[in-house]
Amino acid sequence: MESYRKLDTEGVRAWIAADAELAALLGALPWEVREVSDGNLNAVFLAGGPAGALCVKQALPTVRRDESWPLPLDRAKYEVAWMRAVAPHVGRAIPRLYRFDPSLYVIAMEALSPHVILRGGLIRGIRYPHAAVAVGRYVAEATFATSDLAMPFGRRFEQMALFARNEAILRISVDLILNDPYMDSPRNRCTPGLADIAADLRADAPLRVAAAGWGYRFLTNPQALVHGDLHSGSVMVTETDTRVIDGEFAFHGPIGFDTGAFIGNLLLSFFSQPGYATAGDDRVAYGEWVLDQIPKFWTAFRDRFLELWRAGGGGDAYRAEVFADPAGQAALDAARLKFVDAIWADTVGFAGMKMIRRILGYAHVADFEDIADPELRAACERPALQMARWLVQNPCGSPSGMISGIGGVAL
Amino acid sequence: MESYRKLDTEGVRAWIAADAELAALLGALPWEVREVSDGNLNAVFLAGGPAGALCVKQALPTVRRDESWPLPLDRAKYEVAWMRAVAPHVGRAIPRLYRFDPSLYVIAMEALSPHVILRGGLIRGIRYPHAAVAVGRYVAEATFATSDLAMPFGRRFEQMALFARNEAILRISVDLILNDPYMDSPRNRCTPGLADIAADLRADAPLRVAAAGWGYRFLTNPQALVHGDLHSGSVMVTETDTRVIDGEFAFHGPIGFDTGAFIGNLLLSFFSQPGYATAGDDRVAYGEWVLDQIPKFWTAFRDRFLELWRAGGGGDAYRAEVFADPAGQAALDAARLKFVDAIWADTVGFAGMKMIRRILGYAHVADFEDIADPELRAACERPALQMARWLVQNPCGSPSGMISGIGGVAL
Repeated sequence: MESYRKLDTEGVRAWIAADAELAALLGALPWEVREVSDGNLNAVFLAGGPAGALCVKQALPTVRRDESWPLPLDRAKYEVAWMRAVAPHVGRAIPRLYRFDPSLYVIAMEALSPHVILRGGLIRGIRYPHAAVAVGRYVAEATFATSDLAMPFGRRFEQMALFARNEAILRISVDLILNDPYMDSPRNRCTPGLADIAADLRADAPLRVAAAGWGYRFLTNPQALVHGDLHSGSVMVTETDTRVIDGEFAFHGPIGFDTGAFIGNLLLSFFSQPGYATAGDDRVAYGEWVLDQIPKFWTAFRDRFLELWRAGGGGDAYRAEVFADPAGQAALDAARLKFVDAIWADTVGFAGMKMIRRILGYAHVADFEDIADPELRAACERPALQMARWLVQNPCGSPSGMISGIGGVAL
Repeated sequence: MESYRKLDTEGVRAWIAADAELAALLGALPWEVREVSDGNLNAVFLAGGPAGALCVKQALPTVRRDESWPLPLDRAKYEVAWMRAVAPHVGRAIPRLYRFDPSLYVIAMEALSPHVILRGGLIRGIRYPHAAVAVGRYVAEATFATSDLAMPFGRRFEQMALFARNEAILRISVDLILNDPYMDSPRNRCTPGLADIAADLRADAPLRVAAAGWGYRFLTNPQALVHGDLHSGSVMVTETDTRVIDGEFAFHGPIGFDTGAFIGNLLLSFFSQPGYATAGDDRVAYGEWVLDQIPKFWTAFRDRFLELWRAGGGGDAYRAEVFADPAGQAALDAARLKFVDAIWADTVGFAGMKMIRRILGYAHVADFEDIADPELRAACERPALQMARWLVQNPCGSPSGMISGIGGVAL
């Protein structure tokens, strides 16, 4: 901790230069180093030279937009642990890890170029034909491999124990997602035109009970190593490539927390589209494209998860030896379908939780924040919130049912 | 590890003598030290002197009846951690801890006298009017205090992480309770007259799926620090006093695993009663008394758990601030009732799992084993197994429904 100092571009340059392997990745001088920090928690730099490029990410000791909110630097350790845990299972779905410097809490990883943050692309109305499927496969591969279906419980418990210590970061999720939006908290904020619906939501006792139920599930359902923050800002895309980044919120939790985060953020994008309508493009067709990504994502997740499970388990749950006979195999396969249906139910509930917190809680999303006119923004957020309230309390149905349910939301 | 040696009675005497505080508890010489080992895993001694008595328990490096089965000595550390974790919350329900010697894996604790193991009392047909209620209250107090209802999640996760390392002991539960009984395993054994029903059970695919579901729940539902082995051999009783011992299987798991273990063992006792019928006592009335303990136990657990929760939470789940208004309080109280109903469902399923493993698995119970005539024993075990199969697949109803369901089991 004593040797920690915030790196600027010059500091990043010197840090790379001191590491022969990293320096070789960039090649001969000169190197270009520029800061591209975007999220709330870290400084991010891109360094490029004649031979290649690097992304250098440093944990900062406070929230970037609120320096009175301290954050532990060791979250970088958990991001690295997440990368190492899922890398063997997800192919190129996450960036390659080059180096972790535990004294400066700096991670050097593959630079993603010309990738952009998926959220930004969705705001600009760009179609990424492979993104939803790639993220769905990523979740299936990362969570199946770290679940009791694939991992002997001793190793899973050991990994769970490691990530259970990521307390300060998990505290952010517990406070900002699970609790604050449902009570009066000084951290909450919302578009002025939503004050009435915010008050109405916070007075809705059945909704609060349902939300507390999802909170309890978040805390007591370590199914697998989940990303923990899988919104559209944690995905980088090109037309043909998709990468999942920023695993510092990783912990052993419900798989539906990841699938729900991604779907919830697609729904936020959908509801934000009218805010970007122009005379030449009402964004209706694009909104429909965004919705279409929901069943694509879910089907990709579900098919890949089932495929992996059918190919073999290896964990202590639903052990293969117990179901070796034909009757056992048939019954096990029916159980697999029920298992993914239960993940869908969690997906729906957590999608709603994620939507509510982005509209009424502390950290909002650019999808809505970039709509400059507060009345237009409120008009977009209001039906999103209405749908979210319904999802939190009705964790059932199917992806197509979810989409047709949108027709029932007053737009 | 190098300094480890098995203590005999002389060794125990010397170990106590080397500790002035422990020696003072016994008072002036001479001391009586005798071995009273009963379970599968440890050597247990009682030491007494003019001033008082001590129980000295040493972890053994192998299963007592099978020295080819090694066991890690550090399980004693987890038993001590369990005692320290629950002691502040359960009053005198567990013995007082005096000393832990981490080099010899020896625990010195309060000697319980004239207590006997509850299982032994049940076999002899003795009524303990307070035992079921005391154990129910113990489970409520130990689990509520270590749940997300009472503990900030960071502390709970830290405690969960500690006990998650108790791998070798948890492996015993995972193998012997959750898996072995449902497949052909060389560790399984059963009374010869049950070979047909054992084969039938292992061919029952829906039962195996249901059992695997309970196994998955055991692994992925860390609701609280549970005892992990709360059968009638882990309870010591007198007419007026009840103590819970042997927490070395403790981990963060489903609360219903403890309540189910206790109820499952009461049911085993009930079904074993015909094996102890004599000309003068058919044990029917005693069997009914045993059954009556089930609703007494459950009601004591449920009432105490709800009482503690209503008195205040303090954890991160169902946070009090979210439900401060009258409508919130009413909705929260309805949620509390649903919460304990869900524990009941788990209780039923795990009770069935515990019964099956004690009849078809590796470790049997004296309730049946002490019935010398194998035909009479099989006649007792058969309906117990039939009921257990039903419980594993029908985790619903109520304690009184469970008891009236026994009428449907062919006796």
